[in-house]
Order: sequence, then structure tokens, then C-alpha cells
Amino acid sequence: MRIGSKLALACVAACGIAFAGSAAMAQQKPEETLKMRQGLFQAVKMQFGPVGAFMQGKGPLPADVEARGEHLAALAAILPGSFGKGSEALPGANTKPEAFTSADFAKGMEAMGVKAKELAVAGKSGNADAIKAAAAEVGKTCKGCHDNFRKE
Amino acid sequence: MRIGSKLALACVAACGIAFAGSAAMAQQKPEETLKMRQGLFQAVKMQFGPVGAFMQGKGPLPADVEARGEHLAALAAILPGSFGKGSEALPGANTKPEAFTSADFAKGMEAMGVKAKELAVAGKSGNADAIKAAAAEVGKTCKGCHDNFRKE
Repeated sequence: MRIGSKLALACVAACGIAFAGSAAMAQQKPEETLKMRQGLFQAVKMQFGPVGAFMQGKGPLPADVEARGEHLAALAAILPGSFGKGSEALPGANTKPEAFTSADFAKGMEAMGVKAKELAVAGKSGNADAIKAAAAEVGKTCKGCHDNFRKE
Repeated sequence: MRIGSKLALACVAACGIAFAGSAAMAQQKPEETLKMRQGLFQAVKMQFGPVGAFMQGKGPLPADVEARGEHLAALAAILPGSFGKGSEALPGANTKPEAFTSADFAKGMEAMGVKAKELAVAGKSGNADAIKAAAAEVGKTCKGCHDNFRKE
């Protein structure tokens, strides 16, 4: 049992966590929060990219639109946790500080999740027009927050 | 219709995508890939942190273990796309190049997803022992790849 417990703790530590205690474990430095946020948005871009290209007639219909929609919905659920206090004013931060406390911003993220799930449904159907329409709706939720809460 | 289409395209562009054409749209620079990868791992750390702290008796049982498990499963599904060619040897890249082509690595990511979903189920049950056991299993999948494929 003791060996088992030690192994379990080593495994927990392996989940990216080098820590000295519980507080440190649950908290991120602002720099880490920003890094997370930027990486998550990069993932949004990567997931949506080929769908957007298809929508514009600049690429083929991706075979995995359903998965892309699911991933985008998951990212929309994870992203709000990446707007952590202290990361607003860091160099490279591209979000207006008001986003961090705005109900509209929170609603925008929620809307992105809803529309991304609809994109997944359209992707499952395989219907090109439905996919284009659903992708446009996802794009609107992106634009909604970018227009109001992105610095540049 | 034309105005609608223009709006739709502007919205697609808003999804984090500044692009000149389809190829650029679907492709990331290696630096972007690395940024995404590091951000996604940061998200893994953030999602798992409080669960790991609870497991060690260093924090309370988080109320949202189910969501954390779901998020971790989603991240495990998104992460493989972040090990893109050209990002292996960048400064700050912490993954051994062999991970990018290893079947074991791919299996490890898959296992993380499976165990994270089991953590979500345990989280839904609210049973502390089940959560600890499931979290240990997630931790093992982290450790499995870290031992073999992480540089430091």
C-alpha cells in the first residue's frame, strides 16, 4: 500500500505539476495563465482553420468537422479559466482588461460553446450547406468578442 | 445575401485567423504549434491541479471534478495535433523528438483521454475514494509519457 501510494503521488506530480504545497498547486503565475490563454486560442485557430477555409471555397470539406466542433466547444469551456487575474497587463496580452469582468464576455464564450456544438452536429450530418451555416455562426461568436474585447 | 456573405467571411476571419489563403489558413508556423502545445499542457496542469491536491490531502474536494475530467479528456484529444512537424527542435521545446512519431506516445495520449473520462464519471458520483482512485489513474498516464518522452 505504501509503495502504491508513493507511486500514485509520483504520478500526480507528473501531471505537469512541480509543487511545494496545495496553494502553489492550485494557483498559476500570471505568466502561465497568459501562456495558457494564448495556447488555447492557437488551438481554436487550428481547429477552426480548415472549416473556415472550406466555408470560403478555399479548401476541401474536412472529414472531421464533427470532432473539430466538439474540440471547439471544449475549448470554449476551458478558455474562461485562462482569463486569470494578474495576466491582464502582461506584455503580449491582447485582451482588454474589461473582458475579465464582463458578463457580455462570459456570455460570448458560452455562445461560442453552443454554436461549436451545433457545428459538431452539422459535421456529423456531413451536409456541406449545414456545415457552412454552422461555421458562420461560430465565426460570429468569435467576432462578437474580438470586436469588443481584443486590443488590436 | 451579399452583405450576409461578407459578414460571414469577416466572422470566419475573426476566429483568430489572419490569412492570405487556404494553405496559410490550415497551416501553423512551428512557433505557433509550440505555443499551442505549451498552452494546452498548462491547461492540463490547471485542470488537474486541485484534484491532485485533494488526492494528496492538501486541498478540499473540488466541486467540479466531473467538468475537470471532461476538460482533461478534451485536452487529451486536442493535444496530439500540437506535436506538429518543425516544432520539435525549437528553443523551449520540452518533448523528445521521438514522441512525434511514436505509437506509444499516441497510445499514452489516448489512455489519458480514457482515464480522464473515468475521472469525470467518478466526479459525477461525488465519491471521494473513487475520485482519488480515478485521479491516480490519470496521473499514471501523465507519468507514462513524461518518463519516456519529456526532456527534463
